[in-house]
Amino acid sequence: MKARVYVTLKTGILDPQGKAIEGALASLGVEGVASVRQGKVFDIEIASNDTAETEKILATAADKLLANTVIENYRVEII
Amino acid sequence: MKARVYVTLKTGILDPQGKAIEGALASLGVEGVASVRQGKVFDIEIASNDTAETEKILATAADKLLANTVIENYRVEII
Repeated sequence: MKARVYVTLKTGILDPQGKAIEGALASLGVEGVASVRQGKVFDIEIASNDTAETEKILATAADKLLANTVIENYRVEII
Repeated sequence: MKARVYVTLKTGILDPQGKAIEGALASLGVEGVASVRQGKVFDIEIASNDTAETEKILATAADKLLANTVIENYRVEII
């Protein structure tokens, strides 16, 4: 099964990378951008064809490695 | 308007980061993961309320800065 895991910073956590992108866009002349926050996305292929099992594997992977749950949220989407 | 820009590596482009994650998941005992490819996601707030204008600003931002269109694809999604 194909799935996607989105990892984004929690609200209130400072995102210096996003701020740098805002600054770079302004200096490149791209106007109208109010704010940018950067996250990560993982396109994952799971060997199993069972949705419940796939979700379990992905939650384990996200908790153990993909996301730092102290400062990041994650969302799993099965495609 | 709120929007999201997804940047992923084109098919065929080697993704060493994804390979490293595959290896790390296997060594952490997370089984059943066939492949991982990592991408980026940008949560962007645009000052305009016009959909067409927002799409234009985002396409410019992605072409100029967010994605390296030689090796990466991007997809814009207005929320």
